[in-house]
Amino acid sequence: MAAPSAVTVLSKESTNMLQGFSVPLTPQGKSALVSPPPWHYSSDCLAIEYWADPGSIAALLPTGVTPDDKSQGRAFLWFLDWQFTGSNDEITDPARYQYREAFVLVEALFERAPINYCPYIFVDNDAAIARGWAQGFPKKYGSIYQTRSFSAPSAAAAPLAKGSRFGASVAAHGERLATARLQLEEKVADPAKVFNRPTVMRRYFPQLAAARQTKPPVDELTMSLTDNLAVVDVWAGSAELTIPEVRGEDMHSLAPLRIGRGYRLGMSYSVTDLRILKNYVA
Amino acid sequence: MAAPSAVTVLSKESTNMLQGFSVPLTPQGKSALVSPPPWHYSSDCLAIEYWADPGSIAALLPTGVTPDDKSQGRAFLWFLDWQFTGSNDEITDPARYQYREAFVLVEALFERAPINYCPYIFVDNDAAIARGWAQGFPKKYGSIYQTRSFSAPSAAAAPLAKGSRFGASVAAHGERLATARLQLEEKVADPAKVFNRPTVMRRYFPQLAAARQTKPPVDELTMSLTDNLAVVDVWAGSAELTIPEVRGEDMHSLAPLRIGRGYRLGMSYSVTDLRILKNYVA
Amino acid sequence: MAAPSAVTVLSKESTNMLQGFSVPLTPQGKSALVSPPPWHYSSDCLAIEYWADPGSIAALLPTGVTPDDKSQGRAFLWFLDWQFTGSNDEITDPARYQYREAFVLVEALFERAPINYCPYIFVDNDAAIARGWAQGFPKKYGSIYQTRSFSAPSAAAAPLAKGSRFGASVAAHGERLATARLQLEEKVADPAKVFNRPTVMRRYFPQLAAARQTKPPVDELTMSLTDNLAVVDVWAGSAELTIPEVRGEDMHSLAPLRIGRGYRLGMSYSVTDLRILKNYVA
Amino acid sequence: MAAPSAVTVLSKESTNMLQGFSVPLTPQGKSALVSPPPWHYSSDCLAIEYWADPGSIAALLPTGVTPDDKSQGRAFLWFLDWQFTGSNDEITDPARYQYREAFVLVEALFERAPINYCPYIFVDNDAAIARGWAQGFPKKYGSIYQTRSFSAPSAAAAPLAKGSRFGASVAAHGERLATARLQLEEKVADPAKVFNRPTVMRRYFPQLAAARQTKPPVDELTMSLTDNLAVVDVWAGSAELTIPEVRGEDMHSLAPLRIGRGYRLGMSYSVTDLRILKNYVA
Repeated sequence: MAAPSAVTVLSKESTNMLQGFSVPLTPQGKSALVSPPPWHYSSDCLAIEYWADPGSIAALLPTGVTPDDKSQGRAFLWFLDWQFTGSNDEITDPARYQYREAFVLVEALFERAPINYCPYIFVDNDAAIARGWAQGFPKKYGSIYQTRSFSAPSAAAAPLAKGSRFGASVAAHGERLATARLQLEEKVADPAKVFNRPTVMRRYFPQLAAARQTKPPVDELTMSLTDNLAVVDVWAGSAELTIPEVRGEDMHSLAPLRIGRGYRLGMSYSVTDLRILKNYVA
Repeated sequence: MAAPSAVTVLSKESTNMLQGFSVPLTPQGKSALVSPPPWHYSSDCLAIEYWADPGSIAALLPTGVTPDDKSQGRAFLWFLDWQFTGSNDEITDPARYQYREAFVLVEALFERAPINYCPYIFVDNDAAIARGWAQGFPKKYGSIYQTRSFSAPSAAAAPLAKGSRFGASVAAHGERLATARLQLEEKVADPAKVFNRPTVMRRYFPQLAAARQTKPPVDELTMSLTDNLAVVDVWAGSAELTIPEVRGEDMHSLAPLRIGRGYRLGMSYSVTDLRILKNYVA
Repeated sequence: MAAPSAVTVLSKESTNMLQGFSVPLTPQGKSALVSPPPWHYSSDCLAIEYWADPGSIAALLPTGVTPDDKSQGRAFLWFLDWQFTGSNDEITDPARYQYREAFVLVEALFERAPINYCPYIFVDNDAAIARGWAQGFPKKYGSIYQTRSFSAPSAAAAPLAKGSRFGASVAAHGERLATARLQLEEKVADPAKVFNRPTVMRRYFPQLAAARQTKPPVDELTMSLTDNLAVVDVWAGSAELTIPEVRGEDMHSLAPLRIGRGYRLGMSYSVTDLRILKNYVA
Repeated sequence: MAAPSAVTVLSKESTNMLQGFSVPLTPQGKSALVSPPPWHYSSDCLAIEYWADPGSIAALLPTGVTPDDKSQGRAFLWFLDWQFTGSNDEITDPARYQYREAFVLVEALFERAPINYCPYIFVDNDAAIARGWAQGFPKKYGSIYQTRSFSAPSAAAAPLAKGSRFGASVAAHGERLATARLQLEEKVADPAKVFNRPTVMRRYFPQLAAARQTKPPVDELTMSLTDNLAVVDVWAGSAELTIPEVRGEDMHSLAPLRIGRGYRLGMSYSVTDLRILKNYVA
């Protein structure tokens, strides 16, 4: 594991050395929601392939990202049980650092190259929100669950085997935003045929000062960079998915018109960097 | 899987067929917190062996359960990530039926036979509280976490391998009740040498009617019965454990004086029955 | 405040004095979910009058409770922000003892007298579940919110005044079970004309021992008894209410066919007793 | 109520009109965590005056903020039950917009003027996190409770009256970070003598792109601006406060050495603007 790249914020007029990759900055650096990269992740994932209204996808894309006509509205709804660790033994503090996530990826193009764009994402952990915002993921707080595979045999074990049934859901503030089910059929020999587009996001931080509210200080198109990406134990099967209309949420505009395959897989990577594709501010 | 034993409550003066193993009883039987057994479970578990004050253990034992002098205060603090399913595809509804648990087992004797007695137990799910109360587990609501093993390789994966580090914690109402850490050393060849005592509980339901508040309608000593018990992938290692004093909780009386081995394992079983060892009411 | 009536459970064969009105029973009695009565409550409430399908109400009533034909399906959905205290300064421990609740009351008859029967109830606190079960309220865990009235003037204050708008909702496991809105029109001079029926419940505790699963040890019809009941600051206005269909819940059978008035009020009482109307076991 | 100042983000190369004051930006603008100001707030507050180690306060201050020697370490720990509304009837959606907060204010100087600086703040709502970050409040997710005053008389009502007892607490990830208690003694005639310093924050948004991780795009000293501030019903009394040491948090460095008065009050204001005192980036 690489040594942490210390991000120390030096107060110029004083001797204060305030530390942290994110707020809150403190002398000791323990309170910061986010510690400096590298950030290491491993997860179990359910991903449901589906097709949404292409016009609704187009309406969500930021400048420079264009519809991928070949995709005809292809999208994926992902559910992920994550474990995170940094350089401070976070792996032994699961109450703070283990979390669950759900997001939508829609297929699109950036400078003619196929990408996935992430318009909606939910997590159940504040450190994950802060790391996500730093990357450009528009994270909100949600309550996410997926059926897990346990090794002790039982009708409750959901092993990675033909016929196993899985469910997943995401809710926010007591409203169910999506529900999925999946029944495993066969192992996928070549996952790279399914999951091969980089993820692009809108990194955005607002301005509240009245005279400048239309001029956000951060407004960029970014691409997620992952080190040591591993995708393992990929199974595919039949799937169900609903994205109901909910007051105060727009995700329903991407409700499924047609549902494809469902996938169950393991995924891991580390994050140390971010690519900025476009700066909308300049 | 055995057919569900329908528990239908027939209203005698009407044609109402109200259904459910627990409240709420309804015509359709879907709202009941608990559906009729069999109940199927699979879990990942961390268990920390430790020794508490023998006098404090003795003070917690109900009538008929006596200290096991050979144990000298031996106890286990367990953390469990559970998946539950009944006969209604509950496995695909993890938001409702997946849950986490932590409990203390203290070694004791019942009619000279070695048992574990369960004085404290916390879960994060209401169906699990209701099933637990039906068995005699004195469940309260808590927030429980344990480090998980993921298959995709990463510093965040915590594989079942020498050197892997795990953490676990239980909190209730914003107070940390116990924190544990564990580092795996070796696989355990014969888990039956470690985990071999049945679990005994106090099944108790109170009476609020003023004239009978000292006469609970249910006050029994019970023993948990498990069908098809499987214990798999048992690893042992070094462990840390703290049980701090917290206002409004008595669990601190069982704080560790000495800490033994830590274990990480998988466990599954089904529940269809309960043994009633003693009826304190009669 | 009356002295607490100590409910001590004496272990007959030992000197153990285990304490608590509910589990877990301990020597110190602090861990018990419920301390002995008196239990003191004060609340802010929203209550929506509506009419459900009379046949669906009839189908939910236990033996001895019959439809009130004059009511024609009249029901109330209540939302309550509660503060609880017992005899141990619980009022200063809001993390443990403040809670929120939502329940349905349907109008019915018991021995020809008008009553309200409570088929569904949700709370966000385990002590409230345990006290409720002791009374016969079929409580499950939910997430409940209602707009509050604050004294500092603001568009966000929702004062008790003509035109103020309130909202309320109850969700369980990430599914919205009911949503209500209310706009105040006028103060109610005589609340006793609106709220004047006692509440009747089914007190039920199951049996898991296989040979006796159809013979619950506790199966009674009970009536809630309240000391020092106060109903204050009652306002009425126009209301909206939805009870959507949700997988795994039957409450939708009581969805509104017609909506009446909405009420906002304060209510307080103490509990020291329970009336048992009928014992279904004997 | 002022008309909402529409903050529309125009995609230059397309016709997309993506809306929202914060992420996620969508065509409809309902999903955004934050809608454009004005933001209206009303709250009930408990505030505990205390003195922390002046050196620990000095170590937390950013460049340009200096210790207030007259204060000798004076600080306040606040607990707030908030109701928020914007321009979309948010007041009737309490599940999404009602929230609870706890923060520390330490007395300091900015250009010789007395201010309060906010180093630590916790909320239980994601929209409140997003609005807070836009202002410079270093918000993290926590679980916060305070005893409430109810109008229906009861031992559980905690009225605004001499002798009433209140409690409050903040926890994060199952660790109790602070616990306070307060007993009311008398009404405060002139609250402006107690609460009269503006609040100053560090507005900070990090950079993840590897080459620029030490150059955050947003690093400012800001001052909170409040329209129509009202402080009502201020009571004072005796207080208790603990801020225990917790793994992964630095707030303990501001633990109380001496405790002053406790206050209970109502407060409301609106937010439409922010003052930027200093730009650390330029």
